[in-house]
Formats: sequence, C-alpha cells, structure tokens
Amino acid sequence: MPFHQHQLPNGLTILGETNPAALSAAVAFWVKTGSRDETPEVSGVSHFLEHMVFKGTPRRDAFTVNRDFSRIGADNNAWTSEENTVFHAVVLPEFLAEVVDVLADILRPSLRGEDFATEKKVILDEIVRYEVQPGWAVFEKARKNFYAGHPLGNSVLGTTASITALTRDQMADYFRRRYTAPNILAVAAGNFDWPAFVRLIEKACGDWPAGEAPRSNRTETPGAGGVHVIPKPADKVAQQYVTLVAPAAAADSPLGYAGALVATIVGDYTGSRLFWALTDPGLADEAGMGIDECDAAGAYYTSFNCPPERAAECYGIVREILDDVQTNGVSEDEFRQAKTKVLSREVRAGERTQRRMLTVAKDWVYRGGYRSVDDELAAWDAVTLRDVRTVLDRYPLTNQTVTAYGPLEKLA
Amino acid sequence: MPFHQHQLPNGLTILGETNPAALSAAVAFWVKTGSRDETPEVSGVSHFLEHMVFKGTPRRDAFTVNRDFSRIGADNNAWTSEENTVFHAVVLPEFLAEVVDVLADILRPSLRGEDFATEKKVILDEIVRYEVQPGWAVFEKARKNFYAGHPLGNSVLGTTASITALTRDQMADYFRRRYTAPNILAVAAGNFDWPAFVRLIEKACGDWPAGEAPRSNRTETPGAGGVHVIPKPADKVAQQYVTLVAPAAAADSPLGYAGALVATIVGDYTGSRLFWALTDPGLADEAGMGIDECDAAGAYYTSFNCPPERAAECYGIVREILDDVQTNGVSEDEFRQAKTKVLSREVRAGERTQRRMLTVAKDWVYRGGYRSVDDELAAWDAVTLRDVRTVLDRYPLTNQTVTAYGPLEKLA
Repeated sequence: MPFHQHQLPNGLTILGETNPAALSAAVAFWVKTGSRDETPEVSGVSHFLEHMVFKGTPRRDAFTVNRDFSRIGADNNAWTSEENTVFHAVVLPEFLAEVVDVLADILRPSLRGEDFATEKKVILDEIVRYEVQPGWAVFEKARKNFYAGHPLGNSVLGTTASITALTRDQMADYFRRRYTAPNILAVAAGNFDWPAFVRLIEKACGDWPAGEAPRSNRTETPGAGGVHVIPKPADKVAQQYVTLVAPAAAADSPLGYAGALVATIVGDYTGSRLFWALTDPGLADEAGMGIDECDAAGAYYTSFNCPPERAAECYGIVREILDDVQTNGVSEDEFRQAKTKVLSREVRAGERTQRRMLTVAKDWVYRGGYRSVDDELAAWDAVTLRDVRTVLDRYPLTNQTVTAYGPLEKLA
Repeated sequence: MPFHQHQLPNGLTILGETNPAALSAAVAFWVKTGSRDETPEVSGVSHFLEHMVFKGTPRRDAFTVNRDFSRIGADNNAWTSEENTVFHAVVLPEFLAEVVDVLADILRPSLRGEDFATEKKVILDEIVRYEVQPGWAVFEKARKNFYAGHPLGNSVLGTTASITALTRDQMADYFRRRYTAPNILAVAAGNFDWPAFVRLIEKACGDWPAGEAPRSNRTETPGAGGVHVIPKPADKVAQQYVTLVAPAAAADSPLGYAGALVATIVGDYTGSRLFWALTDPGLADEAGMGIDECDAAGAYYTSFNCPPERAAECYGIVREILDDVQTNGVSEDEFRQAKTKVLSREVRAGERTQRRMLTVAKDWVYRGGYRSVDDELAAWDAVTLRDVRTVLDRYPLTNQTVTAYGPLEKLA
C-alpha cells in the first residue's frame, strides 16, 4: 500500500495511502483545532463550527449539502475533540471527485446568521442531553478536575452560558484563525488515484488562505490530584460513577505502546483484571481503563459504576489492582494475551479504508510521519515487559485524580 | 474469493469463502433456531440458551471459555433472533484452530443447574432493562400486534413469567431437538485454509447427533391491521412512539431488492422522504423505515417518535408519504440515489471478513445458495423502477398495522 504526500504552496498537506485491492475510498479534511485551542469566552466554538460547516456555503444550502452526499452514497460524518475537528466520508471509488467537491466546499462555510441562530438551539439542546447522562458527566468532570486549568480540560461542547453568549462574528474570527491551509490536512486511503486526488485538492483548496495557527500551552501536567466528590440526588442519578485519571505518555511518545498494553491488561472491556474483579462477578455494572494520548500530554482513565452501597468496595478493589500492577508489574501470560488482543484488533481495523485513512492522518499529525500496517504491527510486537516497567516508573498508576459522581457524599 | 461447501455425514453443513488478501478469518456456528420455534411455555429459551452456551462444558468453565477467547484476541459475540442463534468470532489467521476448538466445544454446553439459576437472574434483569426502553417496547408490541398469533410475533427475550417458570430440563430438551447437526452451519470467511477448516470441523463436530429440526408454521401473514394505542403515564414515557408494520417480501423472494430500495427511499436515516419531512425540520426526533425479511414472511417497519402534541401531525405526514409512494411510485432520481446508497454500503460492508461470513451464511440459509460480492452488486444493479411498481402492488404500503406507545390515549 504505497504512501504519498504533497504540500500545496499555501501550506495545506495532502496525504494518501493507495490500495488498489480496496473496494472503497475514504477521504477526510483534518483540521488541527479543538476545544484546547479555545479561550473561555468562546468555549464550544470548535464543535459548534463543525455543525455550521454542514449548514452551507455560497454554492450550497444545508439541503443541497445533505443531498449531494446522499446521492453519491457517501457515508459521511464529522467529529470534534479537544485537539481536532475532522470531516470524513467513504465512497465508491468512482465518486472521489464528487466527494472532494462537497467536502472542500463545506470547509469554507457561509456561517449565515440565520443558520447560526437555529443551530445554536440544537447545540444548547445537545448540552442538556449530555449533562443528564451520568457516564458522560463524570468523564467531563474528571477531565476538568485532573487538568485543573490546563486547556486540555476544556469542554468540547462548551457550556449553556458560553454557547448562549457566542456570536456569529466570534465564530467567523475563530474560523479565520484556525481553518488556515497550513492547519489542515486532506487525506485519502483505499482505492483511488493519487495524482488525480492531488489535482482535485489543488483545484478546490489552492486558494485557501495561508497563515500559521500555532497551539499554545503545549505542556505536560501532573494532574491536580485529590478526591472530588460531586453528590447528586439519588432520584436523578441512581448509580455511583467513579473515574480516576492519571498522567500517561503523550501521543508522540514511544512509551505509548507499553502504556496501551497496561490499560488493556488492567481494564479492557473483557478478560482484563477489572473485568474479572468487578464486572464478571457483578460487583460493578461497568468497569474499564483506557488511555487518551494527546499533543504533549496524555492520561489514563480508569472508571466504574455500581450501586452506591458497593462503591467503597469497588473503589478499594480498583486501587488494589492499580497498586499491585504498579508494584509488581504484569505477568508474562497477561502481557502476551494483551499483545495478541491489540494486534488482532489493529489488523481487523486495518481492513477498513476509513480506519486506515484516520490512522494515516493521526500518525502524521502526532508523530510527524507515516507508518504502514506492518510498521504498526512491528512496533506493537517489539514492546517488552521491560518497556512496561519503564512506562510504570515514568507514569505511575498511583498518581490518580479521583472524581465521584452520584448519590454518595463521600467515596470511602 | 473462491466459495467452498461440504456436508458431514451427520448433516452439518460447512461453508467457506476464502480470501488470501484478507488480514483476518471470521468463523461462526449458525443455528437455525429462534423464538419462532418456541412454544409459549418455553418463550425466551433460545436466547437464554445462547447465554448458557458461554457458561461452560465438561472441558471448560465460564472463566476458561472467556480466557480462551481472550488469549487469542478473538472478537467474539453471539445473538439470537426470531429465526437464528449465531455464535461468531474474528481472529488472526494463525488462531483458526484455537477458535474452532472453543466455539465447537461451547456449542455442546453442560447446562449446569447452578449456572442456569444464576443466569436466569441476568435474563430477568435484561427483560426489565429492555421493557423500560420505549423504542424497544414499541417495536416488540408492534411486532406482536402485526403477527397476532403467528410465531414470528414471539418475543426473543420471553416474559418474566415464562423465564421464571423455565426449567433446566426444558432447556436441555429444546437444545436436544434444535441444536442437531443438520440444523447447524459452520461458516468461515477471510484468510484461512479450506481443507484445514473442514478437518477441524469434522474432528470437533463429527459426532454431533443428527436428527431433523423442522420449522412449523412457515406461512405468510397479511397482518392483523388496526390501530393499537398503548397509553403510558407521561412521567414514565415522555415521547410518543409510533410503529407501523406492513407485509413485505420474504427473505428468499427476488422482490426483496426492490422492497429494500422502497424502504431506503421512504425511510433511510438520512436523505429519505421521512428524513426531509420529519427529522430534518425537527418535527420528530427519529423517523425511519426498514425491512425485515424472514423465512416465508417479511415486514416493513415504519416508525417515528416525537413530543405527544406533534404525534397526530407526524402520523398524518407518514401516512401521506406512504400513500403517495403507493399511488405514484418513486422518482427516477430518488431511485438512482437509493441504489447508489445501497451499493455503496454493500461494498463497504464486504470489506470486512465478519460481514462476508454472515452474508454467506444468510444467503445459504435463506436462498439456498452462494452469492459473491459481485453477484450481490449485480442483483442490486439489475433492479428497475418496474420492479418497484411490482413490489408495491404485491405488498401495498397502505396495509398497515399501527401501534402507538406513549402518553396519548388516541393517535389521531
């Protein structure tokens, strides 16, 4: 699967991994901006802007945007995170030109005042809808508690107050500063012609303004620490939700592989230590651990939810497991199992053009380079038990910021 | 992608589609049994038995089953429907023998009394958890109202009463009658060696008992008709849920393609008539139409949910759309769009070994033959507007059984 790259004079990066055996082509515009690039006054603007991108351009209204994706059978979507806003679509190979035409067009949105007002209501609804989901709320609050002022703790959705106050001009200003050509990648993977793709992007995006969009505050953080209990009336939140956050390797760190294996061993949704100790015996309804690798920082998230009367017991078990892994490391058997699990998932994910496209983009954004599926598998394979020890020493699992959300007034 | 088939002397069918370019192998045991094969006394036994299959065998307890899937990185799962119970896993090619060993072993479960008692609680919990989800409840009730005594209206989960009363011996009896070799297919797709797969299945399943497991009541049904309103207190169910069910082509009918295109045009989750009329303007929170193709029968499901005060308006719009399509058919433009959409989805789905494996099994079970991805695409491509007219005449969209679930005492 040959890899290609090209940069337009305005700074826009074009990436492609061609695979003639694939049945589809996956395409994305990847904008390196998200909630961590927002000031408090415009909290949530990245995500709101992602919505506005689908509301139309001088050439297309919202109806036409939807229709033009629909009539080529495009499976398209978008998402916003703390660091990225990504617009992507998968199509049959013969629709490459059409899908680039729509995607590139909407990336220069009109941001019409009327659409802005209508969509604001949708966003405000979304904020309320999420806030009442305790599994989401505890994660949002845990993140905020851990990052304590670091911009990675910024909310993607924003708040009712910040979105209500946000103006169309503030959004237009954010768009001008952040959606510049050097801050955007056009990426494709699968069955497509590379020179044709470059020509399409050149034609559609060659006149997008240049201009750097640097990110400030690219620092690690040790986390605030402490136990933060947020009591909720039992008739609103029946279960107790607990999330522990600890520093982990950043996205460009070679320690990331070992860190991900630690998270798999401790807290994969099945067959992990937390699974056997909490989920399988029915002590907790859900329990797991994951790793979130960001730009210049990273974090482990360990979480569970259970009936309030079992929260202290579950919390004790979680801390015991984390302490045990920290002190004694992991066994050779569980290490080998975790590797097989991760390798197997990577391989299966690599069968889909959409996943390859997103991985190619992510590797470029976070590691400044390209890795083939084989490179990636080799990197996983090369991790040793010694690397696990190294990552545990560098990022101890004992250094947790704890957030509890539910009926309890105190956790233990 | 060559196709292979073989039948063991005991009647078990082995199917395989080999693709050396694939990165994984997907394997399943497909048992042709489900809730429509149950008597009222054992309602829910198929699904409960699916759970018990993971509880162990003479060779493995539940822990070992999970561990043995886990250590080969298998992505495994199972599901039960009205007509089938399917156990499947995706693995790296080198773990084919291991995954067949575990899957074949658990398909001969011990059904230990102690595990049966523990799992019964899990199932009873699941029934309660589903019942409080109005989107699920309305579907279940709509199905029952439409089929009105036909076994396709049987509940997959069963009821609190039927599961409470179910005994271990009743389940063992059901297992003996329904999990016979001729009623089971072993299927693989992706990167694997066909002769090796046949040898593995022969060794593991060659001694499974033969014995026919015929299905009774293989009849079409016109549907009961009528409007069935199930009022719920507004503090329990805030939204109004409405589901309309009409007869559609059965799974082996050549009219299925045209029927699926009708459902896509009327009710795809995006870009369809219902989308533009109800979802996009925010009249309904969700609206859609799908087709459920079964053994000797089929049904269109059209559904929406919205605030109760808008239910009459939404219902009127839905009936208008259905009447309009019934009378005037669909336009050439929307027909072409729907085809592109379906083709595009089929192609993308075909990139995954798991989906191919399930499609190969389904085609064999319901159409008695094999179709390659190309065959399938050609079949979609060959559908004409005249076929749409034929399917509308044969299965009119006006012939609906309506179920309303929510605060309203009457629908319109």
